[in-house]
Amino acid sequence: MSAAPAAKRQKASSPDDVASTPYKLIYWPGLPGRGEHIRLAFEEAGVAYEDTALQEDAVQQVLAQISTSNLAIGSALNVPPLAPPVLEHGDLVISQTSNILMYLAPRLGLVPDASNGDADAIYRLNALALTALDGLSNEVHDSHHPICTSLYFKDQRAEAIRSSKLFVKERLPKFLGYFERVLRVQAERDEANKWLCGAQLTYADLVLFQCLDGTSYQFPRAVKQLRDGGAYQRLFALHDAVKQRPNIAAYLASERRQPYGEGIYRYYKELDVVPEEDPEEDAKA
Amino acid sequence: MSAAPAAKRQKASSPDDVASTPYKLIYWPGLPGRGEHIRLAFEEAGVAYEDTALQEDAVQQVLAQISTSNLAIGSALNVPPLAPPVLEHGDLVISQTSNILMYLAPRLGLVPDASNGDADAIYRLNALALTALDGLSNEVHDSHHPICTSLYFKDQRAEAIRSSKLFVKERLPKFLGYFERVLRVQAERDEANKWLCGAQLTYADLVLFQCLDGTSYQFPRAVKQLRDGGAYQRLFALHDAVKQRPNIAAYLASERRQPYGEGIYRYYKELDVVPEEDPEEDAKA
Repeated sequence: MSAAPAAKRQKASSPDDVASTPYKLIYWPGLPGRGEHIRLAFEEAGVAYEDTALQEDAVQQVLAQISTSNLAIGSALNVPPLAPPVLEHGDLVISQTSNILMYLAPRLGLVPDASNGDADAIYRLNALALTALDGLSNEVHDSHHPICTSLYFKDQRAEAIRSSKLFVKERLPKFLGYFERVLRVQAERDEANKWLCGAQLTYADLVLFQCLDGTSYQFPRAVKQLRDGGAYQRLFALHDAVKQRPNIAAYLASERRQPYGEGIYRYYKELDVVPEEDPEEDAKA
Repeated sequence: MSAAPAAKRQKASSPDDVASTPYKLIYWPGLPGRGEHIRLAFEEAGVAYEDTALQEDAVQQVLAQISTSNLAIGSALNVPPLAPPVLEHGDLVISQTSNILMYLAPRLGLVPDASNGDADAIYRLNALALTALDGLSNEVHDSHHPICTSLYFKDQRAEAIRSSKLFVKERLPKFLGYFERVLRVQAERDEANKWLCGAQLTYADLVLFQCLDGTSYQFPRAVKQLRDGGAYQRLFALHDAVKQRPNIAAYLASERRQPYGEGIYRYYKELDVVPEEDPEEDAKA
């Protein structure tokens, strides 16, 4: 948390105002979704935030943001978002998960302490967060909706099965292996380094935790098989360590944590596949 | 360009060293790909950069970065990238297109002049860049490889046709309409505002130009139909204005601009579809 006040002083144009300005997350209700990455950052930092997903008019608040009639009236600088999550902080309204996290993380103490002289740490973290979201959020979502997001699952079920078999065989090990390697790089620098950016937990670890948690929900058999195989021990240790942090554990046990449902991560029994020797052979059968 | 020196002084830990430190872009040869967004930023700014795609060992340089044996030896802070583009600048090595652009843009004068007091402009720009990349780069790519990136096109040809029909009917107008609306918001604030962030060209405009240019290469009939329809006049005016900027025009006419090929954007005659009344009906026929 030590970096937060300094970050506020450096970045905000009116530091005293902004420090006391509430944070408001606007996101769909009833599922963790992409908004979850924002929630986990606030929860780990112990910083209060308004979550519109818990409010009665949750859907309307999202629709007001993404409506084609939203012309950002009342702001001289903001532009309307295409999709949630949306963060409001004072006069600022921004969208895109990784973008919101870049804005928030220095303010929440979730980047390495600047006293180590590494002014560019945020760019390393952002690359890691984007890579986790690419492979373990976007691609996982696309596995159940491969043809088009606008089509019902039932209308692309066969394609989703084929896509999921290839995902768990080829893409999932690629991404898990990548993050295991990043953790190995850090551990070889210093054995105390158990996080993606070294010795200190950052928001990239929270993103990776949530991505792995959601992927496990959608593909429980495949993730268990890969975990049991033992090739990704540092990665699953990170997942477990995030889950056990006091603020995160309390959050996950609370009613603020939404259950998985019809969001990014979905459980369909027919997609709960494990890597096959030849998924295409199997898919054609 | 006026913002560049100030940005350098503010952001770099050793400003005098970093200002004279060469930029090196590491990317696949023979196609514009995601690396193109980085190239356009350098070209518009008129800042020299090394482009490994033009070198004899271009493929090997990418492979050295993304190899599973790359453990970022020799750096105390960098982590290996999963995929290109990769930017090297002094000791810093970072990946992910939107991330590299966030790092570069203030140094290249491609964010609004900080003298307007808007310290958060970069977060608005990054959201716009990410949204363009989501809809007009990632989704366009997925239209020709909907089942899995690891599968040949011929093995997912029918699915690609179905996906492309839905993309041009539902997703493409959604994204074009979004950016048209952002430009309308800016124009209603001041009629001199013809760029995404207002009166000044930023890197988000370059990203949108390249996304639209690539999408037009893959779906020439659909984009022409939408352009001719007249509903996206500000957007196509932006595209044309970027294309005619002296540095960009000179670059596009040079041999440094790679032709489209087997990259993000691909031309397949059978995917060159136009919006139908009911693409699913058509797909089932």
